[in-house]
Amino acid sequence: MFINTVASYLPEQVITNAYFEQLNGLTDEWIIERTGIRQRRKASSEENTNTMAVMASLKGLESLPYDKNEIDLIVGATYTPYDVIATVAHAVQHAINVPEIPVVSISSACSSLLNAIEIVQGYFAMNKAKRALVVVSEHNTAYNNEDDTKAGHLWGDGAAALFISKERLSDSDWEIKDVITGGAGTIGKAMEGVTLKPLERGLIMPYGKDVFINACTYMPKVSRQVLERNSLDISDISYIIPHQANLRITKNVAGTLQVPEEKMISNIQYLGNTGCAGCAIALDENKTKFQKGEKVVITVFGGGYSYGAMLLEV
Amino acid sequence: MFINTVASYLPEQVITNAYFEQLNGLTDEWIIERTGIRQRRKASSEENTNTMAVMASLKGLESLPYDKNEIDLIVGATYTPYDVIATVAHAVQHAINVPEIPVVSISSACSSLLNAIEIVQGYFAMNKAKRALVVVSEHNTAYNNEDDTKAGHLWGDGAAALFISKERLSDSDWEIKDVITGGAGTIGKAMEGVTLKPLERGLIMPYGKDVFINACTYMPKVSRQVLERNSLDISDISYIIPHQANLRITKNVAGTLQVPEEKMISNIQYLGNTGCAGCAIALDENKTKFQKGEKVVITVFGGGYSYGAMLLEV
Repeated sequence: MFINTVASYLPEQVITNAYFEQLNGLTDEWIIERTGIRQRRKASSEENTNTMAVMASLKGLESLPYDKNEIDLIVGATYTPYDVIATVAHAVQHAINVPEIPVVSISSACSSLLNAIEIVQGYFAMNKAKRALVVVSEHNTAYNNEDDTKAGHLWGDGAAALFISKERLSDSDWEIKDVITGGAGTIGKAMEGVTLKPLERGLIMPYGKDVFINACTYMPKVSRQVLERNSLDISDISYIIPHQANLRITKNVAGTLQVPEEKMISNIQYLGNTGCAGCAIALDENKTKFQKGEKVVITVFGGGYSYGAMLLEV
Repeated sequence: MFINTVASYLPEQVITNAYFEQLNGLTDEWIIERTGIRQRRKASSEENTNTMAVMASLKGLESLPYDKNEIDLIVGATYTPYDVIATVAHAVQHAINVPEIPVVSISSACSSLLNAIEIVQGYFAMNKAKRALVVVSEHNTAYNNEDDTKAGHLWGDGAAALFISKERLSDSDWEIKDVITGGAGTIGKAMEGVTLKPLERGLIMPYGKDVFINACTYMPKVSRQVLERNSLDISDISYIIPHQANLRITKNVAGTLQVPEEKMISNIQYLGNTGCAGCAIALDENKTKFQKGEKVVITVFGGGYSYGAMLLEV
């Protein structure tokens, strides 16, 4: 399958570390040293998960190389829902006005981008769809407790839309060569490491160390799996986009995989952790950087200890 | 694909209409006349969407005709999440202790049972799974506002687990002959008819009439589609299980499809609207009633105006 178009949306408001210094006494240096984050975006009071998803989707439609009415499947993803009934996918269907197609929203926490793409791959395999829209959106600041000195400074908002076709439509399409997803919900602090219980409001990370260790284990592991399955060596890969959770995790993954840090793509420095949208936003941001024939691995790990890796060829 | 085992879980506490008469002045007669509901179940303070999903899954494991470690995919569904990060699917993976398999939770509102099964169908088509666990769970009472005289009396809690294999494993398996899902998010009050915005807490239905009309339109329409696609007539169908939203909708669907009411299976009278779990609970409740060779249609419609139909052969 092939990515035809990628687009992203970021809210305007920038929150720098100075905000958290004033609020919680966490200094810019302290935050940067532990997370790599210098600033993040925050949705306005008129925005939410659904509006950001719609904005990214509409932006994507502008450069879509086919009529929007050919879209025959929408898969939305978020763990920070605005509405769990009229979900991200429903709101996007409504906004782009493509009637009578399957729509479903998913959450497998920060790994959802790859779960959504794998679900699309399944619809393609069944011949139930040919042109899918995957839209990932996070409104972390809606659920975040800024006063939480453990994790309140980590989160940012943003969305991205990927238009994916079963067949190649143009030379500029990127090929999705392979996707692997998995769940490690049976190990460590998978059930408590990162949680968001809507009725208790808080997006919390009480066991950050356990999350850190497992992210640093699973992202290299599943990246190697996807390389082996495709008879590739890590040296064949031009860029790796890991889940944007913490710059120290990214550096650790680079070390384990023995990849020079310049091959690691990051946006956490200026966006914070944008959940399942982070890697997709990075794809959009770097689309002119990638050269024809280059291979890119996206690898993710999230709360509940879901993980995955995807191999792209530009 | 084939359903090997079905199981369900209902919380113990029964809430009769007398409770709402005392609370809101809605009489038993008034509620029954408009909805068919006489009572519903309510989860205890120790229970939630995840615990109910786990209970249904563990019950299913007791009669599973293969080792639980052969399960290679878990798809959870709910629109009333306990935790949107450590989701239903993650909690079930953790509880049944099957490591390193894909897990994902979805929401397409009340239609999610069929969306989840269609996602499984996709994994089977890709040969990425052979034995899937679909678990549907709703904790409506956690988000419901009981004081809401429009919809507060409608909702109940419950969960069900379906174990589904790609190949037939025994003579007692039911065959899933076909599944169709769709979304009508572009029409009517799809975005506002039924909503659950977690940060505003309320599960509300401000446009019940629009939901009613579209449920009565789409469930017969998609049921006919699944019959036509399989060269069947409505007279070939022994039972229809519609989404358990309102007994008047069920009767209306029966009328449109020209099906005698005794062919319509309902549990709303004693469970209320249990969301995406309702039809799956009904499958479990009626499993000894179905005779070998009988055909059953499940049809669903939900908020965001997702819909679907599934054809089963017992």
